[in-house]
Amino acid sequence: MPAITYELIKRCSQTGARAGIIHTPHGSFETPIFMPVGTQATVKTLSPEELKEMGAGIILSNTYHLFLRPGADLIREAGGLHSFMHWDRAILTDSGGFQVFSLGDLRKISEDGVAFRSHIDGSKKFLSPEIATKVQMDLGSDIIMAFDECIPYPADHDYAKKSTERTLRWARRCKDALVTDNQGLFGIVQGGIYEDLRRVCVDELIDMDLPGYAIGGLSVGEPKKLMYEVLDYTASALPANKPRYLMGVGTPDCLVEGVKRGIDMFDCVFPTRVGRNGTAMTWNGRLIIKNAEFEHDFHPIDENCSCYACRNYSRAYIRHLVRVNEIFGMRLLTIHNLHFLIDFMRKMRQAIIEDRFGEFYNEFAAKYVLK
Amino acid sequence: MPAITYELIKRCSQTGARAGIIHTPHGSFETPIFMPVGTQATVKTLSPEELKEMGAGIILSNTYHLFLRPGADLIREAGGLHSFMHWDRAILTDSGGFQVFSLGDLRKISEDGVAFRSHIDGSKKFLSPEIATKVQMDLGSDIIMAFDECIPYPADHDYAKKSTERTLRWARRCKDALVTDNQGLFGIVQGGIYEDLRRVCVDELIDMDLPGYAIGGLSVGEPKKLMYEVLDYTASALPANKPRYLMGVGTPDCLVEGVKRGIDMFDCVFPTRVGRNGTAMTWNGRLIIKNAEFEHDFHPIDENCSCYACRNYSRAYIRHLVRVNEIFGMRLLTIHNLHFLIDFMRKMRQAIIEDRFGEFYNEFAAKYVLK
Repeated sequence: MPAITYELIKRCSQTGARAGIIHTPHGSFETPIFMPVGTQATVKTLSPEELKEMGAGIILSNTYHLFLRPGADLIREAGGLHSFMHWDRAILTDSGGFQVFSLGDLRKISEDGVAFRSHIDGSKKFLSPEIATKVQMDLGSDIIMAFDECIPYPADHDYAKKSTERTLRWARRCKDALVTDNQGLFGIVQGGIYEDLRRVCVDELIDMDLPGYAIGGLSVGEPKKLMYEVLDYTASALPANKPRYLMGVGTPDCLVEGVKRGIDMFDCVFPTRVGRNGTAMTWNGRLIIKNAEFEHDFHPIDENCSCYACRNYSRAYIRHLVRVNEIFGMRLLTIHNLHFLIDFMRKMRQAIIEDRFGEFYNEFAAKYVLK
Repeated sequence: MPAITYELIKRCSQTGARAGIIHTPHGSFETPIFMPVGTQATVKTLSPEELKEMGAGIILSNTYHLFLRPGADLIREAGGLHSFMHWDRAILTDSGGFQVFSLGDLRKISEDGVAFRSHIDGSKKFLSPEIATKVQMDLGSDIIMAFDECIPYPADHDYAKKSTERTLRWARRCKDALVTDNQGLFGIVQGGIYEDLRRVCVDELIDMDLPGYAIGGLSVGEPKKLMYEVLDYTASALPANKPRYLMGVGTPDCLVEGVKRGIDMFDCVFPTRVGRNGTAMTWNGRLIIKNAEFEHDFHPIDENCSCYACRNYSRAYIRHLVRVNEIFGMRLLTIHNLHFLIDFMRKMRQAIIEDRFGEFYNEFAAKYVLK
């Protein structure tokens, strides 16, 4: 029995949307799902209990950051990331590829891997498919990601082709390096905005028979229309019996479009980051809680929301906290935004199960204001 | 029936220490007690539920800060501070005197009150005994403090005398201005380091028959020995049937000395502030959690502590969070430090009830390392 398995529960009759369950060594969770991001072994401002209260079944953490501080050895010594951070549900870790490739002049790429300088103290470091896999084995995450290059946008076909081929060679090396039974390696489909490259990449990854596949290299600055086009042909080419994860996407409009195309998993720092900056996410779009219009507003952020913040606090109070830079304001908005997204995914799942996802999609589009 | 009453449960046979219960419109709490400080209508980083879990029965909030932001009108409109900040236990608010007198060149004192400029935007403001009382009535705190001058250290006898006389005149004006039955006004004993002034101040405040008395103007830079001397003659002169509150004191050694002299209530930003800066309080003294010695330390801050942080997290994890500036690290240390102090007071109370406070005092002194 593989560490990670996908159970398809229901498929939408009009779109590619699907409801499922993913089973991991640290519990099962329903899909489609949004994964809160805990970059440095903590989802910023929150406790694990708060994440559980809102129904989070899996969180994401970050190989690059943990590799630098506190180091994978220390976390292995602590008994793994679950034990270290007191989180007993599933964890997915990214491979660090995205971060090291973002370092620009601080990194040098070879076939072997990426030599780079720490963004913290400038010290020399090296990540390769083998090291990134080993680090993630030390972390003990349930789902580990292959070490890849996230191709920037724009990139020409020649660059994208060479990069994608290397990403595939690296994926094979990651697979070879993974020597535990209780972790599952997801491959990452790259290929930029080129259909031929995406298709080749999908085919080769399918040949590797991994327990799940991610789509990387999207939401990196390309127009949304183009992102949806790439998603169309990429997601539909992925096998139906494996989970599909769209990396780095977390705004409601993109989540709906992703689910519509059959994506099961999403992550993004968006809800936590904008929460810390004073923005609340709602079914009607974003609220900038600092705005003067909320000064005397004693209603919750959202009357229909059942999160801890909406049950107990007014917009006026949260606005006050944000204005005076109180951490509790960041906490309340982080709680609300993550609760909102988890609930948003749950409602999409329910619509899929009741075969009315098309309706859900139209209602959402009519109500949601893009800002 | 006055809003605030004190019930004496037990008096130590060897020292002035006493165990009691204070009754307020928002519940009763056992004394001696430490009050967490929630300057801006939030105890920094924490939720009210976290404060309740550690057994906090009363918190302190700040007239000066709330007067400036969000303003007393807004909080009155919200139904008072309890409702605004979702805290249904007792609240004590200071009068703002301490803050406006600390403004130096930004303030001008007259018999009427203090004209000052906001430290935030420089706008002109005015606080007087009547306004400070009215603001605290708007806030709806259970215990409101008289508007006073906290005499700096050092100050000569002449200045201290004039200031203390004004503080007494202002206390009478506060009493006249308070026109609700569900709030209790505490007078503040000033007088600097001068026994004659402290005694006159105590006598005149007793004449006013207020429901409680605070000792102000200590822990403002004077040597600890001198503070304890002033406490000796001041605390013992206060009536036994009223609560006694020593303002601005929150380190374990000073708490023990205060309780020994019959103090019932304390507040200080110390535990929350040092927590946010990476320091944990323990029965053996302070731990600087960032220190390299804790890197591989997978024990809790204190094996015998039952706080949320000690039940679930290691020193190594908290050290990691502090090093990478994660807010959750500040939360865990704030929780631990406040839990520690509340538990510390509880243990002192138990010792008083069992008439072994002298023993407790000696054991504490033998164990606790002052740093």
